[in-house]
Amino acid sequence: MAPYRIAVIGLGKIAQDQHLPVIAANPGFELAAVVSQRGLGVPGVPTFRTPAELYAAVPDLVAVSVCTPPDARTAIAREALDAGKHVLLEKPPATTLSEVEALTAVAGRRQRLLFATWHSRFNPAVAEARRLLEGRTIRRLDVQWKEDVRHWHPGQDWVWQAGGFGVFDPGINALSIVTEIVPSPLSVAKADLTFPSNSDTPIAATLAFTCLEGPEEASLSASFDWRQEGEQTWTIEIETADGTLLALHEGGTRLVINGEPGVSAPSEEYQRIYAHWAELLAAGRSDVDVAPLRLVADAFLVGRRHDTAAFHW
Amino acid sequence: MAPYRIAVIGLGKIAQDQHLPVIAANPGFELAAVVSQRGLGVPGVPTFRTPAELYAAVPDLVAVSVCTPPDARTAIAREALDAGKHVLLEKPPATTLSEVEALTAVAGRRQRLLFATWHSRFNPAVAEARRLLEGRTIRRLDVQWKEDVRHWHPGQDWVWQAGGFGVFDPGINALSIVTEIVPSPLSVAKADLTFPSNSDTPIAATLAFTCLEGPEEASLSASFDWRQEGEQTWTIEIETADGTLLALHEGGTRLVINGEPGVSAPSEEYQRIYAHWAELLAAGRSDVDVAPLRLVADAFLVGRRHDTAAFHW
Repeated sequence: MAPYRIAVIGLGKIAQDQHLPVIAANPGFELAAVVSQRGLGVPGVPTFRTPAELYAAVPDLVAVSVCTPPDARTAIAREALDAGKHVLLEKPPATTLSEVEALTAVAGRRQRLLFATWHSRFNPAVAEARRLLEGRTIRRLDVQWKEDVRHWHPGQDWVWQAGGFGVFDPGINALSIVTEIVPSPLSVAKADLTFPSNSDTPIAATLAFTCLEGPEEASLSASFDWRQEGEQTWTIEIETADGTLLALHEGGTRLVINGEPGVSAPSEEYQRIYAHWAELLAAGRSDVDVAPLRLVADAFLVGRRHDTAAFHW
Repeated sequence: MAPYRIAVIGLGKIAQDQHLPVIAANPGFELAAVVSQRGLGVPGVPTFRTPAELYAAVPDLVAVSVCTPPDARTAIAREALDAGKHVLLEKPPATTLSEVEALTAVAGRRQRLLFATWHSRFNPAVAEARRLLEGRTIRRLDVQWKEDVRHWHPGQDWVWQAGGFGVFDPGINALSIVTEIVPSPLSVAKADLTFPSNSDTPIAATLAFTCLEGPEEASLSASFDWRQEGEQTWTIEIETADGTLLALHEGGTRLVINGEPGVSAPSEEYQRIYAHWAELLAAGRSDVDVAPLRLVADAFLVGRRHDTAAFHW
């Protein structure tokens, strides 16, 4: 079968680090073009300044991967759907839930596919944790997601601006794993959000979840912090009612079951994302799960606000 | 047909002012009992302290109306569905979108009906505005929703607590009208939220909407303020691309079309809510629209935070 001719829109860090090399290595896809406002390019592939120029110049394009910062994604995705292209969205799929809802409706009407990716879900250890938790009752969930924003987002001011999500930018990765592996739907019962005095988005957050279908005494919590220097922590611990203790370490790449090593695999998140995208395209199916973004919205809706010192790079 | 035997849970202001008299006047319903933690009662009707006592004592109960403050609603609704009752929810249906999602799933599994009411929608002038806007493009939307919190929520501290919505408690009424009459889905592009220094919820908010399907130059905005003394303002103005100007005044009860009086009817919101509930029960249909709550969540997600003086009753 001929490879799917696709384009990457937005050549920032995630496109350079993941999308472009992964697409280059996947024979199911062919990079037909890239779009970069700043005019960045990829050898051997045409660069366009705007999506409109792309669609006019490459009519046999099948799909686009939208890798711009979140606030621009919805308009770009809308334009792509209107041009008849299938759309893969970096996470989070949009800045608001209403945008995702509207995009889903447009994709349905246009009979185009939408894939809202959550890269952290695409680890073998996450799939194994999901399998192990199926049908079990969860007594305790503890998420610790603590990293150094200066290392991972150097100079990216948009993370502090309204709609930039702040510490929920990494935190939503943890939530995308939690919503993938926990069998029952969660809501946020309490949230404490800590805002730098010069920021519209939080630098730290602690959440207490409720599970409408779990035991009332369950303790379900998450702690996100963007001020962690030294060792970085991306851990999810889950204790089930039957006494099993699962721990996912290093962002979902390593599973430990009752203290014994379980599945441990190198992160091949984006390789799996594009493999899944090829399956979706072949099957004519969309994959849009708003649950992680909905939990972030919950946290903002019920959040207590705390102030902390101004943040400077 | 025998009337539906229903109970009201939570005998606060809205139950006393609206639900109880409206149920009493509707021959399609029979008030079988009330539930009040504080032991408030209604003459001739048994009072229970907890829903569990109600369900044990009144097995032929068909449905409940949940009129408690929002933070308790989801657990009460869940318990009612588990007891096999249909559930009518005061607005907003829950504190978080994940709760509504989970409740909807439970109702589906239990084959019980859920009616998430938005009382402001149940005005003839709103229905007429919806009819007039069908198929039209909107060029300008301006919502002014300004009232005196001391008058409408005297001493209700929960409105200032996390999850209490603040000025979005009335603002969501405006949003429930907007989402009912505007033909295309909206999202919140920008929000400015003003928080009293001693409150977790905003006392004022201005929103700029985007419409994914409207013209880019459309100006769509809302201004909510809880500090308005003297005359109260609940107005929605809409200008369409073909030059029609609609204005809904007094919270959706009076429509003005191009300056000329249109439909004007006394507010019979709760009468219409219960008439619709009887239709839903007869037809076996749920009615759950999260769009107004989703816009509030959008506003919190993209909101810029501003501080103002502490609020005291």
